[in-house]
Amino acid sequence: MTKVAIVYYSGYGHTTKQAEAVRDGAAKKATATLYAIDKDGNLPDSAMEEIAKADAIIYGSPTYMGGPAWQFKKFADASSKPWFAQAWKNKVAGGFTNSASVNGDKFATIEYFWTLSQQHGQIWVGTGLLPANAKANGPNDVNWSAGFGGALAISPSDAAPDEAPRKGDLETARLLGARIAETAAKFAA
Amino acid sequence: MTKVAIVYYSGYGHTTKQAEAVRDGAAKKATATLYAIDKDGNLPDSAMEEIAKADAIIYGSPTYMGGPAWQFKKFADASSKPWFAQAWKNKVAGGFTNSASVNGDKFATIEYFWTLSQQHGQIWVGTGLLPANAKANGPNDVNWSAGFGGALAISPSDAAPDEAPRKGDLETARLLGARIAETAAKFAA
Amino acid sequence: MTKVAIVYYSGYGHTTKQAEAVRDGAAKKATATLYAIDKDGNLPDSAMEEIAKADAIIYGSPTYMGGPAWQFKKFADASSKPWFAQAWKNKVAGGFTNSASVNGDKFATIEYFWTLSQQHGQIWVGTGLLPANAKANGPNDVNWSAGFGGALAISPSDAAPDEAPRKGDLETARLLGARIAETAAKFAA
Amino acid sequence: MTKVAIVYYSGYGHTTKQAEAVRDGAAKKATATLYAIDKDGNLPDSAMEEIAKADAIIYGSPTYMGGPAWQFKKFADASSKPWFAQAWKNKVAGGFTNSASVNGDKFATIEYFWTLSQQHGQIWVGTGLLPANAKANGPNDVNWSAGFGGALAISPSDAAPDEAPRKGDLETARLLGARIAETAAKFAA
Repeated sequence: MTKVAIVYYSGYGHTTKQAEAVRDGAAKKATATLYAIDKDGNLPDSAMEEIAKADAIIYGSPTYMGGPAWQFKKFADASSKPWFAQAWKNKVAGGFTNSASVNGDKFATIEYFWTLSQQHGQIWVGTGLLPANAKANGPNDVNWSAGFGGALAISPSDAAPDEAPRKGDLETARLLGARIAETAAKFAA
Repeated sequence: MTKVAIVYYSGYGHTTKQAEAVRDGAAKKATATLYAIDKDGNLPDSAMEEIAKADAIIYGSPTYMGGPAWQFKKFADASSKPWFAQAWKNKVAGGFTNSASVNGDKFATIEYFWTLSQQHGQIWVGTGLLPANAKANGPNDVNWSAGFGGALAISPSDAAPDEAPRKGDLETARLLGARIAETAAKFAA
Repeated sequence: MTKVAIVYYSGYGHTTKQAEAVRDGAAKKATATLYAIDKDGNLPDSAMEEIAKADAIIYGSPTYMGGPAWQFKKFADASSKPWFAQAWKNKVAGGFTNSASVNGDKFATIEYFWTLSQQHGQIWVGTGLLPANAKANGPNDVNWSAGFGGALAISPSDAAPDEAPRKGDLETARLLGARIAETAAKFAA
Repeated sequence: MTKVAIVYYSGYGHTTKQAEAVRDGAAKKATATLYAIDKDGNLPDSAMEEIAKADAIIYGSPTYMGGPAWQFKKFADASSKPWFAQAWKNKVAGGFTNSASVNGDKFATIEYFWTLSQQHGQIWVGTGLLPANAKANGPNDVNWSAGFGGALAISPSDAAPDEAPRKGDLETARLLGARIAETAAKFAA
């Protein structure tokens, strides 16, 4: 069965919600596993070996100070080992990010995930979604946040993880997970 | 007196509204002039000479297909002449963009404006604003759209130019214009 | 048979050489066709229909003033029609760029091609190559120019198109074409 | 006297050489101080207070896996404290990066430094240099590496810190330091 690894960092729990939605979407088409990077930027010992066996690797992090959290970057820097051996080459890749602001440089984080994936020779898959951008649209609509390269989520600064990301962003995350799993399945076939 | 040139393209009038707000902000501290690029990507003959005398050049365009409109890029490519002579070196620079989606790759357009300014040896000034990102915030609040490198505006796909950009985005544009004019005045002194 | 469309603009002929190398690489595994954007930013009438039938679309342009040439952007903006219908969704995508400088913001052009592809819901494939970055390496080596997201070429400002891009950059372009054709063939299967 | 703070991380010593060159350039016009981030991503206790008093902050890091080293990002994330108070607003900013490859996504690191600076409301100053991009140019020439947004350096993978960055890149770094110090002095006046 197709294997999807979701490697992410979450500072306050909002990005965990988004990661779980990506996982739920991917799980419809694949075995999907969450790998949570801890506060020191580390993963459990076995994680790197398991990730190396996945067909797709999805990257997730809040956007902090205009880019992925340092804990995520520590993981990315540690991936220079598989990079050197091109061990992740041809694995499907994708990404998601969450932050408090409507825009807030989220695109920069997705650009980084893509840049990382290209160093690894991965194949990048975005949301494949049109935006919901009419006057009547709002945070309950799929892709109101309007991410194309990856799934975006907006969690207002005073919203707890049980309030945000909101319905539309979580469904967008689910759809990203499903799309990446499908693409990886096609590619593995 | 400090001179601020605002060079922009607008497809349907929304970006013109944003450009006018930038101009209004700049006009409090400087002589501010709008230069509208036409549908064929051209400026009036005298524009390039006038821009060469400005203390600050502000770039504006809608975000179309993930970047500035081709009409703006035609202007940018034509600026290879002043580039060759480094005629815009040390002029202050800034930028603004508008599109229908909440996020929609607007950041990529601002990144491009900055990249262009750096080829020219310009000094980049962003919004200098914190975001309005609590649950109670909305499109009437300054920097709800949350641009830092430049001013962002959201004009829903079914909103006419008299409806959008909305109050918060227009005030953000005004504040950007004022900040750039002030910075240029300091440098020119 | 798998179809690869290569849509590009070339100002002085160097990027045409690079495009031909991409085509030669792709032609080993697919039917590969070059579509040259003209000086006014237009394609032959039939081109958009043919591109719509391709399994992969590869984007190419020199890097001018920190991004793709305006003629390429005009094509990109015209692709808002297929975008609206998501007609290019799931097609494989890739890109290449050439400029006179060693670095010179080439990465910004590749970022743009990727951003465009993501609006279209395409699947991005980069070079999948390690860099040639030891002291003994030079312009005759594959990926000395060190592109990951796309193929890069360096054509010094006083080098004619029969002198540059040089051997290593042309071979890198060939390998990108071959990789994209292979990936598209896998997906089409 | 104008104060310039240079905050950087170096993994193997090459970026330290580049940082020292930036410092030497800045020292002609200002009091210039190096702040080296350690292997755990930390700065000495007093550093953040001193940086808060500087007129300019210059960011430096090797490009690892397509972006700044995680140790630098840890510093950037810790700067959310001064960000919250906008304590670095209006300080001049600039950046530099080094990596083994000719291109190798260095531009992405400079883009990140700029993005960080814009969150802080800083004023960005790049190299202001034309590229050395004719056939006869090489690593001993100023800006052969061709950075505009920031200073770039190429240190081949088998070159020790006493061999690389090479003459041209070190002089480029010096000129960046001098330009930022001059700009900060103008601005502080």
